[in-house]
Amino acid sequence: MKRIVECVPNFSEGRRPEVIDAIVAAIERIEGVKVLDRSSDADHNRTVITFVGPPETIGDAAFAAIARAADLIDMDSQQGEHPRMGAADVVPFVPISAVTMDECVHIARELGARVGQELGIPVYLYEAAALRPDRINLGEIRPRSHQYEQKKVDVGVVEKWAPDFGPAKVGKAGTIAIGARAPLIAYNVYLTTGDVEIAQKIARAVRHSSGGLHFVKAHGLLVGGKAQVSMNLTDFNKTPIYRVVEMIRREAARYGVSVESSELVGMIPQRALVDAAAWYLQLDNFEPRLIIENRLMEE
Amino acid sequence: MKRIVECVPNFSEGRRPEVIDAIVAAIERIEGVKVLDRSSDADHNRTVITFVGPPETIGDAAFAAIARAADLIDMDSQQGEHPRMGAADVVPFVPISAVTMDECVHIARELGARVGQELGIPVYLYEAAALRPDRINLGEIRPRSHQYEQKKVDVGVVEKWAPDFGPAKVGKAGTIAIGARAPLIAYNVYLTTGDVEIAQKIARAVRHSSGGLHFVKAHGLLVGGKAQVSMNLTDFNKTPIYRVVEMIRREAARYGVSVESSELVGMIPQRALVDAAAWYLQLDNFEPRLIIENRLMEE
Repeated sequence: MKRIVECVPNFSEGRRPEVIDAIVAAIERIEGVKVLDRSSDADHNRTVITFVGPPETIGDAAFAAIARAADLIDMDSQQGEHPRMGAADVVPFVPISAVTMDECVHIARELGARVGQELGIPVYLYEAAALRPDRINLGEIRPRSHQYEQKKVDVGVVEKWAPDFGPAKVGKAGTIAIGARAPLIAYNVYLTTGDVEIAQKIARAVRHSSGGLHFVKAHGLLVGGKAQVSMNLTDFNKTPIYRVVEMIRREAARYGVSVESSELVGMIPQRALVDAAAWYLQLDNFEPRLIIENRLMEE
Repeated sequence: MKRIVECVPNFSEGRRPEVIDAIVAAIERIEGVKVLDRSSDADHNRTVITFVGPPETIGDAAFAAIARAADLIDMDSQQGEHPRMGAADVVPFVPISAVTMDECVHIARELGARVGQELGIPVYLYEAAALRPDRINLGEIRPRSHQYEQKKVDVGVVEKWAPDFGPAKVGKAGTIAIGARAPLIAYNVYLTTGDVEIAQKIARAVRHSSGGLHFVKAHGLLVGGKAQVSMNLTDFNKTPIYRVVEMIRREAARYGVSVESSELVGMIPQRALVDAAAWYLQLDNFEPRLIIENRLMEE
């Protein structure tokens, strides 16, 4: 199996494509790293870049991107709808294939130390890489009420905002959150009904916040006249996609409807689909090396 | 998607590892080609090598292997339980990823012409690469009653045995079958019973030869006290693995038993499992590029 880490940094720039081009170019100069996607939003004034690479060099690519963003984005003049605290705002590392979460935590912390020291940017470590319990949740590091301007005032003064790495002083590049998290799967299930209330009831049944499965966020919507259960699966290793779908099927039957189809929004790790196949087929001896393509990707 | 062809040549040598080492080395010298497996049987005096590579060079690797086998294996002294007609006996090309069957047919025919001309070996094209209907089935090209010794007598004399390429004369390297076929999946399903008759009845229901699904070969066995439906799925694109399993589940219920587990014997293309996941999850917008690993393999 090829060892793959994904990095999905968010930058506070969604209006100047030349800036994003420069950041992408800095990432692509690093050996073994590949940019899969870039997506800019002008209203939010924000861009998400998705790239993958081996654990050995993915941190170098993220560093190059952060340095370039710090050069080209001046937070004193940046405005947009999305909460933000820095030029490179949020940088998560995600284990995709043959890499552990611990390795991603290590990459995030090493990068945090380097960004603090070499770029002079205050760094907060979050999610699995967090060093303090009040920094696990990104929302607590960058609430709408404490963005770039407030960080500038409070970092170095208020203990709560002391960075994990870097100076206790905020420059024009702002501050940054660097972390490690499980892959996120955006997944929607359509029901054979136009009754949105059924989708809402099912969403409440399956999601964590109202008593359902641990790593599921869900809400019910009406999309093109069809009731849809719209979800984020935040850790498919612990709450697998097939268990979520089977639970939705059972709940739907309760209301006399069934699943009409489902859809992925964005990409998915191979493992999430292959685990589903193995579960439904009751494949007991399955291991990823039995897939021919995986053997070819071995070094 | 990376373009991948698999080649699974059978050689009439299973007792001298140094001969197999030399053939493997010849394959591995070709750019972009990777040997995944080698499996020798001393009683059959036969070795199967599995290698993969891009459509551009996989034929060169097969040619190198055939040439080396022709040098090192003398069919006049070769003996074993398995029917055989040449040093390199059977050479199929299999489309694995982003390659069509037509492309594999083209690779097989080009290789056939080259083996005939440059190595002076009589070549029969088989399965999807066959040029005559009586050569689609390998069993008709190499029946137990017409092996190396009979080919030596009849090729050049009997029209039925006129080769598709190469001289109408058999040397010490014998003759060879070169072809193209769909990936073969060896797949077993265990039932919650020790009654082998149930496995046999289910095998008869699902297999092509007795009225079942087109690309399924099956028989019922008792393995470790459990009834097993043992299968070869010879074209998973047309008869997918999930349809076979669901049919077995339904038949098993008829006899009051169910599927306990299933197992793969050997490797499987990613697509076969991912198609099963998409079917069970009712994923309507699925395409292979949504898998992160596939994007990384793109050239």
